Amino acid sequence: MDYIFKSNERSSKILDFHHPHQLKEGLEGFSLDLPDHPEPLEQILVDCRDTLKYGVKTGHPRFFNQLSSGLDLVGLAGQWLTSTANTNMFTYEVSPVFLLMEEVLLKKMQSIVGWCEEEGDGIFCPGGAVSNLYSLLVARYDFYPEVKTKGMCALPRLALFTSEHSHYSVRKAAAVLGMGSDSVQVVPCDERYPSPEGLFGLVPFYVNATAGTTVYGAFDPLTAIADVCDRHKLWLHVDAAWGGGLLMSRRHQGKLQGIERASSVTWNPHKLMGAPLQCSAILIKKRVTECMLRQCNQLCAEYLFQSDKHYDISYDTGDKTIQCGRHVDVFKLWLMWKAKGSEGFGSQVNKCLENAEYLFKQLQRRADFKLVFESKPEHSNVCFWYLPPSLRGLPPGPDTNRRLHEVAPQIKAKMMEEGTTLIGYQPLGSNVNFFRCVFSNPATQHEDVDFLLEEIARLGSNL
Amino acid sequence: MDYIFKSNERSSKILDFHHPHQLKEGLEGFSLDLPDHPEPLEQILVDCRDTLKYGVKTGHPRFFNQLSSGLDLVGLAGQWLTSTANTNMFTYEVSPVFLLMEEVLLKKMQSIVGWCEEEGDGIFCPGGAVSNLYSLLVARYDFYPEVKTKGMCALPRLALFTSEHSHYSVRKAAAVLGMGSDSVQVVPCDERYPSPEGLFGLVPFYVNATAGTTVYGAFDPLTAIADVCDRHKLWLHVDAAWGGGLLMSRRHQGKLQGIERASSVTWNPHKLMGAPLQCSAILIKKRVTECMLRQCNQLCAEYLFQSDKHYDISYDTGDKTIQCGRHVDVFKLWLMWKAKGSEGFGSQVNKCLENAEYLFKQLQRRADFKLVFESKPEHSNVCFWYLPPSLRGLPPGPDTNRRLHEVAPQIKAKMMEEGTTLIGYQPLGSNVNFFRCVFSNPATQHEDVDFLLEEIARLGSNL
Repeated sequence: MDYIFKSNERSSKILDFHHPHQLKEGLEGFSLDLPDHPEPLEQILVDCRDTLKYGVKTGHPRFFNQLSSGLDLVGLAGQWLTSTANTNMFTYEVSPVFLLMEEVLLKKMQSIVGWCEEEGDGIFCPGGAVSNLYSLLVARYDFYPEVKTKGMCALPRLALFTSEHSHYSVRKAAAVLGMGSDSVQVVPCDERYPSPEGLFGLVPFYVNATAGTTVYGAFDPLTAIADVCDRHKLWLHVDAAWGGGLLMSRRHQGKLQGIERASSVTWNPHKLMGAPLQCSAILIKKRVTECMLRQCNQLCAEYLFQSDKHYDISYDTGDKTIQCGRHVDVFKLWLMWKAKGSEGFGSQVNKCLENAEYLFKQLQRRADFKLVFESKPEHSNVCFWYLPPSLRGLPPGPDTNRRLHEVAPQIKAKMMEEGTTLIGYQPLGSNVNFFRCVFSNPATQHEDVDFLLEEIARLGSNL
Repeated sequence: MDYIFKSNERSSKILDFHHPHQLKEGLEGFSLDLPDHPEPLEQILVDCRDTLKYGVKTGHPRFFNQLSSGLDLVGLAGQWLTSTANTNMFTYEVSPVFLLMEEVLLKKMQSIVGWCEEEGDGIFCPGGAVSNLYSLLVARYDFYPEVKTKGMCALPRLALFTSEHSHYSVRKAAAVLGMGSDSVQVVPCDERYPSPEGLFGLVPFYVNATAGTTVYGAFDPLTAIADVCDRHKLWLHVDAAWGGGLLMSRRHQGKLQGIERASSVTWNPHKLMGAPLQCSAILIKKRVTECMLRQCNQLCAEYLFQSDKHYDISYDTGDKTIQCGRHVDVFKLWLMWKAKGSEGFGSQVNKCLENAEYLFKQLQRRADFKLVFESKPEHSNVCFWYLPPSLRGLPPGPDTNRRLHEVAPQIKAKMMEEGTTLIGYQPLGSNVNFFRCVFSNPATQHEDVDFLLEEIARLGSNL
């Protein structure tokens, strides 16, 4: 409990940084080594305290480093109950309640996406990258069911499309599934949508559109892309891992217009909706009454999925997955939904986007910072450079850029040593290293945003 | 806490069974529906109580249904701390302590497997099926690195070998990876080892040997299989998801002799070692100094794995995985190891195998039960039929078998309704439906074993 209070205290450090070799050498008696003989209970408690002490407080209101942040107390209680129940999601036999909760959550999320009740199928899985992999797996099976037994050799050479700024997991999935990362056709971000014509020798079948890109928080034009997919009969996947949360807000849901036309959707409640890690859903639209997920993945292992059970075995959903055992990721989200209601998630999302707007406005005003985009943020991502005194007023050009590129990593290194706040940076395309601030913790206030800018300016003042 | 005490009380029910439609209709006011408006805290607590009430107590000493059972209190405390820390395993930046613990655990497990210190690589991943998938993914990359970019079309048609009784996840992985399930050559279980000659048009590259099969708990002859793999230069994977725990016991580790010759090993501490779900490791042997996992899977996303960080970025292990975010599965195991020591795991494993021997001896003595195998169990699996009065003394043959096949499902259905104990059943090959008892909960005593047999006899007495 003390830890949770400290995570919310602005004065406490987010991290007490040590290099790997320092932690491995055993700081203040904190030894990572695994003993042959039991250690006393007292030492176990000290080990727990030290683990938290040298860890990172992702629930701190000044932690802006990742798309997942915050520590929702109801969600945490949900995780604790889940751990105590310690069961597996493969069969109704051992997970009756959790499997029904999964069904309820998937149906709710599908109706929010805009699908009718009979259309929906899906599964919660270990993170957005795996959700994206499922979409590609099921799409491939939908077009070429023989792939399950005969492999890629029985298929023509496939092509899929995704935008330059989409998540790298699409390319990773293509590599894992044996399509090869070369099958991924990257659409440059100034082009409006993919053009499947003119791919010599490749057969296009799948388009990934991103609703909320990882770095910029941008939304692909879903309706226009859906038109192209309709015209060419391509599978449309919408990666809304990050942007899906906006669907909970009446004010912002319009940014995902067209998502209802997707054949599959990735949506991670562990990001903008603040569910504890991990909580990611892949939603798959059914064709007529076929359960694509099941057909694609089932192998009917008799020791687990007996066909002569006395209950409705359609609830033994484990055979829909590429896992066997599966962690219970649904209860915490279900419990949060009970405690907040859909409207509670809506206000939480609005709060995060208001913080982004506030940061955007502060950055507009200041001469020591420069926005990557002059237009109002679409999501809660705000991207910017800090201009240290030595770089202000310099003419733009390769030399300035080269120096600017080194600013963010240097400030980040100091920031980690001091542990007062945490924010990520990266280069992207022709933009040299810039900071990306993201808001997903509703505990963050304007004063934290002010603090972030002051802290960056302080740490970078002598660069 | 009340729930935990009840899980250990023999008189409490393991489950309070209701059919899906009953639970969905809302039993005693327990509604699964997701509200628009918040529910009061009081209701949230009732929801939590009901969730546990209608769930299954996998920690009960009479729960024999799954390879994972029990509720280790130190492991549970580890899960709770992990949930509170709520972070992701992709970078050292946000998971310094947990990534180092993962390294320490992997090195320890590799040294127990018998690899020298420099040889080891690996990762914890979401379950044994995914661990097995990693082994096939990395083996394919090792033989044909061009698969990552060019896909399966650039490769010859591959063949892999696994035994008839191996886990279905091997076939599932072949389907997912685009090799096709037809590429899996199933070796019948009376043959001693796979013969890679004579596969017309297919190129053999991978053998999966099982150390502890799911149903029978049998061990493939690892040394003989390793000889074949050496001769033909095949990748040897050992699926020790279930059997790996025996390595902790001096008395039983000899059953895995030859495992040190494997190129990869799956080992699930959430099974025999009693770690809370989920906790599974894939261990990969390095070739010289190459990190195969990283080379196979990395895509170097700049927003996450910046190359200009101020610390040793070899600890940013997220790019080794096929996920992006990854749940922290290591801390509970690390904490249990501190609290028990290696020797504590050893005694725990011995206890589980002693229970199996005790059950085996009881079954030998009784006329109303029949063992599937007359020889002493190798692992903690014990397989048997119950012979109801109407079937005793009947001559063996198709008619008796047909009737015997229906016994286990009928008893299981009654058992679920009564909720006093829980055990699995399945057919396998020419063996009609039989019960499989497995022991992985050290809280189980001889009296629980006696109770199981009496309860089966009671429930089946009028069949």
